Amino acid sequence: MPTTTPSEGLHRLTATAAAAAIAAGELTSEALARALLDRIAARDPALKAWSFVDRDAVLRTARELDRSPSKGPLHGVPIGIKDMIDTADMPTQHNSPIYVAHQPSLDAACVETLRAAGALIIGKTETLEFAAAGRYAPTGNPHDLSRSPGGSSSGSAAAVADFQVPLALGTQTGGSTIRPASFCGAFALKPTWGAVSREGAKFYSVTFDTIGWYARSVEDLDLLAEVYGIVDDAPPRTGPLAGRRIGYCLPFPDATSADSREAVLAAVRHMRAEGAEVVEIALPSVFATLNDVHRVILFSEGRSAFLNLYRAHFGALHEDFRHRTENRDGFSRADLVRAYDTAASCRVAFEEIASSFDAILAPSAPGVAPPGRWHGDPGQNQIWTLLHAPVVNVPGFFGANGLPVGVSLTGPRFFDRQVLAVAAALASSLPETVREPA
Amino acid sequence: MPTTTPSEGLHRLTATAAAAAIAAGELTSEALARALLDRIAARDPALKAWSFVDRDAVLRTARELDRSPSKGPLHGVPIGIKDMIDTADMPTQHNSPIYVAHQPSLDAACVETLRAAGALIIGKTETLEFAAAGRYAPTGNPHDLSRSPGGSSSGSAAAVADFQVPLALGTQTGGSTIRPASFCGAFALKPTWGAVSREGAKFYSVTFDTIGWYARSVEDLDLLAEVYGIVDDAPPRTGPLAGRRIGYCLPFPDATSADSREAVLAAVRHMRAEGAEVVEIALPSVFATLNDVHRVILFSEGRSAFLNLYRAHFGALHEDFRHRTENRDGFSRADLVRAYDTAASCRVAFEEIASSFDAILAPSAPGVAPPGRWHGDPGQNQIWTLLHAPVVNVPGFFGANGLPVGVSLTGPRFFDRQVLAVAAALASSLPETVREPA
Repeated sequence: MPTTTPSEGLHRLTATAAAAAIAAGELTSEALARALLDRIAARDPALKAWSFVDRDAVLRTARELDRSPSKGPLHGVPIGIKDMIDTADMPTQHNSPIYVAHQPSLDAACVETLRAAGALIIGKTETLEFAAAGRYAPTGNPHDLSRSPGGSSSGSAAAVADFQVPLALGTQTGGSTIRPASFCGAFALKPTWGAVSREGAKFYSVTFDTIGWYARSVEDLDLLAEVYGIVDDAPPRTGPLAGRRIGYCLPFPDATSADSREAVLAAVRHMRAEGAEVVEIALPSVFATLNDVHRVILFSEGRSAFLNLYRAHFGALHEDFRHRTENRDGFSRADLVRAYDTAASCRVAFEEIASSFDAILAPSAPGVAPPGRWHGDPGQNQIWTLLHAPVVNVPGFFGANGLPVGVSLTGPRFFDRQVLAVAAALASSLPETVREPA
Repeated sequence: MPTTTPSEGLHRLTATAAAAAIAAGELTSEALARALLDRIAARDPALKAWSFVDRDAVLRTARELDRSPSKGPLHGVPIGIKDMIDTADMPTQHNSPIYVAHQPSLDAACVETLRAAGALIIGKTETLEFAAAGRYAPTGNPHDLSRSPGGSSSGSAAAVADFQVPLALGTQTGGSTIRPASFCGAFALKPTWGAVSREGAKFYSVTFDTIGWYARSVEDLDLLAEVYGIVDDAPPRTGPLAGRRIGYCLPFPDATSADSREAVLAAVRHMRAEGAEVVEIALPSVFATLNDVHRVILFSEGRSAFLNLYRAHFGALHEDFRHRTENRDGFSRADLVRAYDTAASCRVAFEEIASSFDAILAPSAPGVAPPGRWHGDPGQNQIWTLLHAPVVNVPGFFGANGLPVGVSLTGPRFFDRQVLAVAAALASSLPETVREPA
């Protein structure tokens, strides 16, 4: 008796492979969706990556896509949406008691663009409350359910890393896309700030909030970049690491564990062995203050972002958001202006450094995924968010208990495709990147 | 027979006066709403300031407010909302065929905060399509219906200037709040960028979009600033112009008509006569490029802002938005990064200049309201939007055909209340500011 079913293995398809098979008539969106929904049904009661999945509605939509001519490059391809990004046909709950079962009237801009490209929205993924603070996502790490997948994009990272869906949208304000990718062992892109409209995603910090996404290959990250019209001024150099020039740094070495430091240094050794020139870069001394600068902007912008909820839903608003609205840290407006201007000048300074490299390598997280449900420290990620720089997490390194540790590749603003090209070169030369959880 | 009714004159109440009368039990929200709805019914068929008013629903809500204990400083006070800001109980149509009769599921953050303070949302006001480009508002100027009220906040400016409502929300991305105030002869505040959450207002440019508002007194502008928690680091100096230090400039003199130039110079003479020290300031030469810098950012951010509509609603999307999405101006990403960095450095430079003054005086518009429905040139306003500076329009000057011309008072970021204090000093010393249309 065969132990496989016809759908066996479909969950392993990347988005690119699935899109090609669907376009070629070799696979239906319905069959793929059914395989993923089966996997979700089997595994998500333990993992808890999803806040909302309507199996029947998804299969119905998949059948409609199967009957319709191709809408675009994602035709029929399933994707998960972080549950603080609006969807017109599924609730958007923000992991907040204020928004239980809330049904938005419109898709967020980033979701409407996905649907216009043919994507099949398969469900909503668990998030830290408002992708900001407050209540943790209930989600576990696919490689060790007792540990955190990271946050705030907890469910999106976990669902992709658990092979429950090939793609998922997240967001990053501190380190909410890249750190979970590192903890879960997935690829992720946080694009240049402003490259994708954030209309219809919950606000925290208008200066930092960025739509990002998860995948299990760089090719899939690139596929969504193309859908969102993210194009560098010049086509990036593709091909192997040999001959490339890479900078690397540990911006906050005291907050980097041995696991994370070793991942960066292993990547350095690996890239050198592959023929890249890899040099350590020195960041200007002011960069050491950027986590503090980030906090001033984050908490000050949070002060206005949550004012309406503070006034209209005080009882249901988590203490963390009251903290921001009341400005309990006591940041002055002068502090905020200084922080804005420091951030702006550091963007210029970083690009002077970064523009002479193909990419800059740095840690993606303080270390491996922590125990429990705390989403982890964003202190390795905030610097790039503040600099508005594109960041790709490349998995493929492993720390304590064999847990994944990723590395970040970053570069100047709007060099997203170049950074992706370097990530592709690195990923394709590594012995293993994304490891299927047991 | 008396020709007056009991409600005669209620339309002249400022928000502050109305709030006080309601709080004192001398006026009901219903009586005030009825007077304004009557005025809207009588005058708006010609003016066309409103895209949606549901008389019965407004009166029902007013009666509920009259029965309820005070919710806050706006209890029972009517306010209009620009029709690209979401309202949970009224459609939000953006003057776009894509959103005809669209009913949002939530209030925008700025609307929810108003309601929590007790405000009575009286209706939605006409806007330039998406407050950005495309279809003009159908609204006329209350002082000459053949002329434009300015845009994009056309209906909000016209409704307040026509004494149809004491307060209205608008937005500004170029000059969409301040210029209509100048054309219509109303007070307006465009606060410091980021001071009020813009969640739930349509996106155009994330770097520039700002919630602002209209009133017929500085006190009323201040009232809403207080509701939104806009507080300077130190309480502003209040009191008369005497002894204050004011700078003035004509940033784009070649684009300033005689009417507008004369309004600024009249304000200079007036403030000097009142005992202020008023000195002309020289802006750094790079400031002459800021309209170009503004356009690069505006059109580049518009490229991502309208991508979802371009992909999902191409046929119904106005050519102007196709222009932006297709980047027909051909702005490179390098152009955009340079524009961001120039804007950031000019913010620092402006504050070095502005911090030695109580406020900076400048034109609010190129001249008086133009004929037709074109919303006018934002070239006098974009500079302050780009600098993220607070701006108050003070009416009280009059140009060709007796049409209103306002002047702008601006200052460093987060000195909104100080700028309002200077505006109050100027306004209270002028012989006339807001003139009731015939």
